[in-house]
Amino acid sequence: MAYGIVQEQSITFDTDLRLESGRILGPITLAFETYGELNADRSNAVLVEHAWTGSAHLAGRYAGDNQKPGWWDAIVGPGCLLDTDRYFVICANVIGSCYGSTGPASENPRTGKRYNLTFPVVTVRDMVRAQVLLIDHLGIDRLLTVLGGSMGGMQALEWATQFPDRIRSAVALATTPAPSAQAISLNAVARWAIYNDPDWKKGEYRKNPKNGLALARGIGHICFLSDESMTAKFGRRFSAKDGQFDFFGQFEVERYLTYNGANFVDRFDTNSFLYLAKALDLYDVAWGCESLEEAFAPVSSPLQFFAFTSDWLYPPYQTEEMVEVLRKMGKEVEYHLIPSSYGHDAFLLEHETFTPMVRAFLDRVGSKGCP
Amino acid sequence: MAYGIVQEQSITFDTDLRLESGRILGPITLAFETYGELNADRSNAVLVEHAWTGSAHLAGRYAGDNQKPGWWDAIVGPGCLLDTDRYFVICANVIGSCYGSTGPASENPRTGKRYNLTFPVVTVRDMVRAQVLLIDHLGIDRLLTVLGGSMGGMQALEWATQFPDRIRSAVALATTPAPSAQAISLNAVARWAIYNDPDWKKGEYRKNPKNGLALARGIGHICFLSDESMTAKFGRRFSAKDGQFDFFGQFEVERYLTYNGANFVDRFDTNSFLYLAKALDLYDVAWGCESLEEAFAPVSSPLQFFAFTSDWLYPPYQTEEMVEVLRKMGKEVEYHLIPSSYGHDAFLLEHETFTPMVRAFLDRVGSKGCP
Repeated sequence: MAYGIVQEQSITFDTDLRLESGRILGPITLAFETYGELNADRSNAVLVEHAWTGSAHLAGRYAGDNQKPGWWDAIVGPGCLLDTDRYFVICANVIGSCYGSTGPASENPRTGKRYNLTFPVVTVRDMVRAQVLLIDHLGIDRLLTVLGGSMGGMQALEWATQFPDRIRSAVALATTPAPSAQAISLNAVARWAIYNDPDWKKGEYRKNPKNGLALARGIGHICFLSDESMTAKFGRRFSAKDGQFDFFGQFEVERYLTYNGANFVDRFDTNSFLYLAKALDLYDVAWGCESLEEAFAPVSSPLQFFAFTSDWLYPPYQTEEMVEVLRKMGKEVEYHLIPSSYGHDAFLLEHETFTPMVRAFLDRVGSKGCP
Repeated sequence: MAYGIVQEQSITFDTDLRLESGRILGPITLAFETYGELNADRSNAVLVEHAWTGSAHLAGRYAGDNQKPGWWDAIVGPGCLLDTDRYFVICANVIGSCYGSTGPASENPRTGKRYNLTFPVVTVRDMVRAQVLLIDHLGIDRLLTVLGGSMGGMQALEWATQFPDRIRSAVALATTPAPSAQAISLNAVARWAIYNDPDWKKGEYRKNPKNGLALARGIGHICFLSDESMTAKFGRRFSAKDGQFDFFGQFEVERYLTYNGANFVDRFDTNSFLYLAKALDLYDVAWGCESLEEAFAPVSSPLQFFAFTSDWLYPPYQTEEMVEVLRKMGKEVEYHLIPSSYGHDAFLLEHETFTPMVRAFLDRVGSKGCP
């Protein structure tokens, strides 16, 4: 059942966060939303982590006409996977993003101007550090679980390795211990598309530069789909509006990418896109460690992983590398390889493929009681 | 053994070619090179077809210091796969390209100006039609074989289906009956990168517009490699010159793509790049037919196909689709799936993997005598 009306909340922490880069960021504002009620012993909190271009608006709708449901609306609500009759669900916009949390488009209180490229490079670990402030503020000692896909999965891994005492489990979908050279190179060409745009002005634009960002999104879009899903959706159909021999004639897949790229410009800040791309590329669960073994040594909670067969951005072998190490270390780990033709986006599009397993996992973790 | 010194040749046909688009192109100049000697009964001619950014300079070196060997030098020469003591090897630059054959950068004799975007859209079939003029000119009735990879493989397929009486065999590597939506979308974002470049001026540039073309090449480069080969070559190494937390800091793979993209601008015309991308996207061996069966009906020569396991641009299943149809039709067809981590470029980088099979195939075809 759909969740209903929800409100965005926001909190500003007047603290300085020491980032991985050694730089200081503060004050820190986090936009967040919550669904359901925190129970008396504060043991039913679930934190959902969003991916690259996501927001705190995980589920439900804002008041008013024609409001869009949250980005993962299907899994949150009464009777849903994240059952709001049982769980207190939280989602916060990451730092570096542009949906209410502190990012490059925010005003730097020290200068009264937008940060733009003076914003420090942030890592996924930094994002999670900022979320710890929120969890403290909400009076939650331990989260029942942290769940996320893609960059959201990286955040779940950071909770499990950096803040093991603050969680009772973690669920990571369609993620990677560290993006491969190919994944980095795809972000690299997306960045390059923005750098090439004269309207970007090294980040000092007044108006979101549209050509570069739309193209960058187009490149990303290809990575999120799969050969099979694109064939099923578009095949080789040529636009009915164009002649096949028109120089600017487009295949339907091309028109779709162009259209979606243009829409994206209306909803995402270009500098935020670049900062989060950087965070993705730099992500390494073994950051500062010599090995995956060393990185996973602190893990004290059960972990559940999902990979999707047609995901070529963060292919299953990358998750399997982590699972193998965790198993050898005797950690409690569960892994499911989901057959899917939807590529990286499968975690958002085919929630029914993993819902039963996550539900059973949460029941098991929840029934253990608070440690 | 390397072939030695070679000279570029050129011929202009004062004929008008009726293109697939219905438009007329003429006169038509073709740049070409030949290696070895045509035998008395003109039965030892092998035509090698180049890919997207290739040229007629297949093998050998031009006279002078520091001249680069041809793009597939390793397979042409005395004792090589295409043994110039036995075969008369020909390579011609395709129409639409910028290496001496008629293309968008050529002068339109009707106007005295560069064609630029007034150049007609050309198809792979049109390229082969132009090559027939050359083969006629050389007095060759039937080619012993036509061999090529990627767009070169498409040309081999066009010879086999459109001009079956002019060949005795064909060898197609790393190719496809028709690029999939994913392959089209990757060309689409490459095109888009050029369209975004204000220096492109809708094709009316004086100087090759560098930013857009370099990025387009970067995107292409990713498609020609593989996840595995990029990991082996670059991994996650960060440039030694940059700090990891520098906003503009680059991974080595990123630096490599940038560097190679910039070099490409010095050697390839932007409009040619766009016209050939279009020809690739439009390619369909069954163009004008209802089915692959109908397209392959005229095939009268043995065909040999090679696909490479890590080629994700034109994945093996696409070649296998053709092979299956040809086999069902009772055509003489040979197929080899080559295990390789080099991606689409494997056909250029790992010639030793297919040399023995092609050699045996050519021996068999040659021993049959001229039909």
